[in-house]
Amino acid sequence: MATVNTLTTKGHPTLTVEASKREFKTGLEARIAARANELTSFTSGQAPSHLQANLIVLPSRYAADFRDLCARNPVPCPLLAESCVPGDFEKLKSHLQAVPSGDKIAADLDLRSDCPRFNVYEDSKLKEDGVLDIKSYWTPDHVAFLIGCSYSFESALCSAGLPPRHFVMNRNVAMYRTSIPLNPAGVFTGSTYVVSMRPYKKVDVPKIRAITRGYLATHGECLAWGWDALRKLGIDDIDNPQWGDAPLALDGRPLGQMMGDEENVPVFWGCGVTPQEAVMRAGLEGTVMGHAPGRMLVLDCLEEDILVQ
Amino acid sequence: MATVNTLTTKGHPTLTVEASKREFKTGLEARIAARANELTSFTSGQAPSHLQANLIVLPSRYAADFRDLCARNPVPCPLLAESCVPGDFEKLKSHLQAVPSGDKIAADLDLRSDCPRFNVYEDSKLKEDGVLDIKSYWTPDHVAFLIGCSYSFESALCSAGLPPRHFVMNRNVAMYRTSIPLNPAGVFTGSTYVVSMRPYKKVDVPKIRAITRGYLATHGECLAWGWDALRKLGIDDIDNPQWGDAPLALDGRPLGQMMGDEENVPVFWGCGVTPQEAVMRAGLEGTVMGHAPGRMLVLDCLEEDILVQ
Repeated sequence: MATVNTLTTKGHPTLTVEASKREFKTGLEARIAARANELTSFTSGQAPSHLQANLIVLPSRYAADFRDLCARNPVPCPLLAESCVPGDFEKLKSHLQAVPSGDKIAADLDLRSDCPRFNVYEDSKLKEDGVLDIKSYWTPDHVAFLIGCSYSFESALCSAGLPPRHFVMNRNVAMYRTSIPLNPAGVFTGSTYVVSMRPYKKVDVPKIRAITRGYLATHGECLAWGWDALRKLGIDDIDNPQWGDAPLALDGRPLGQMMGDEENVPVFWGCGVTPQEAVMRAGLEGTVMGHAPGRMLVLDCLEEDILVQ
Repeated sequence: MATVNTLTTKGHPTLTVEASKREFKTGLEARIAARANELTSFTSGQAPSHLQANLIVLPSRYAADFRDLCARNPVPCPLLAESCVPGDFEKLKSHLQAVPSGDKIAADLDLRSDCPRFNVYEDSKLKEDGVLDIKSYWTPDHVAFLIGCSYSFESALCSAGLPPRHFVMNRNVAMYRTSIPLNPAGVFTGSTYVVSMRPYKKVDVPKIRAITRGYLATHGECLAWGWDALRKLGIDDIDNPQWGDAPLALDGRPLGQMMGDEENVPVFWGCGVTPQEAVMRAGLEGTVMGHAPGRMLVLDCLEEDILVQ
């Protein structure tokens, strides 16, 4: 099955990509396919049960402040791993107590090509949107950070009979900028949470909270839910996400038309696009790179490895 | 020198206490004095260079959710330690990587009496305000948690020639409820950050951020600063803190009269009163206890023990 999905980034040209829904079983298969440009679409549902990660690559002078940003904001920015040494794109140093070996997180790795697509920022402005690799931008001074991804608890939601709707409808998850401030850290000031959203029945929210609670390393339980969460988060238009696909009701109508409906309440989680937002707000100099939202790095370790019981 | 200071908690009777400014050199001296009701006032400046802690004591059924709340909100709720086992008020289990031994955090301890004063909550309502001990409320089912306190970087600020004003003027620090949501965790939903505030010159803010940055275990760097931070944090009246003493200009005028003055900008840090707010919002059943804001548990370990360089 091949469907057309759009990757939208507000204020930038819309990129339409072919979502070849070839399925990959392991993280390594997915990475090798991304490396060969055979996997270029969003990775939700790929390599089920394998952890997925957000990527952000910074000049080394910003690395210490970025670690601090993650330590102070673990819900949107749960730090999984980083480059073993500056410039290294093949070996990881783990930040996970449960998986202390970087090689167990991902071996046979090329961080410059193993996400399906990448974004590139120059002096905190988006320069390239959805490129297939970042080899020409990578320098010996760059440090990569992997941040947990909420795709990593979707298998658990599916197993509980609560599959995320974007997954069922073969779309990218909707992601929104919010007004909730990040705790600042060094150069990283003035930024706010980015959140991902999955609509569910209101009655299922307690179960969904409980299922996702133990996945602290991949954003943990939802941070807000219900229609009045839109106001609290400063989201003006549920039908106009800043990243990913617009959310739909099961019959295909825009979700905003269901406003107030308890069978379709928006449920929000922290989102690993937050660091890319933070970079843009921080006025960093030089070249910064990240995955294209929804096109994650798929890892070797399993969701169950990081689950806190 | 003896001055009169007030401990105010909005909506509850104002308690006026004698601030006997006898000075204690070590955490143990301060705790023994608190145990004997010889130290009943706020502890800012006591046992310089020793870590101080916020206390919250919960029925054991809420302990796992509370740990999760701390993990998800480390800026307002940096978890230092907890009761070794439920019911234990003498021995600690450390959550600090840098000080893994509970005994090194505080030995010769009685959590029921070693804060100068305590608050007691029943079914999430404040029942006792500023009592001298909690022996009659403590049960074998209670679990105590120690949360880092921003008093613990005040020595560093003093050493840098930037003593906090409340310290210079021998008052309690001002603490405010904000509109910034905590990341929810289990039963703990609907709560917001509590912050402490110290006025400084605007020009000194970068230095103050840098000095406090490494004290991650005691709230780390400031989370907001400047007069426009009031709006961002949802603080209506700088002269009307919910806890502690109203802040003053150096000439004794209310700080609010200096609005917009760059020689007196409010600087805000996460505050360990946050868990007491969270308890009141969460609708917990049973008896919860905490220190009286500003009347901290003084510890044996040193600020330098937890400083991240």
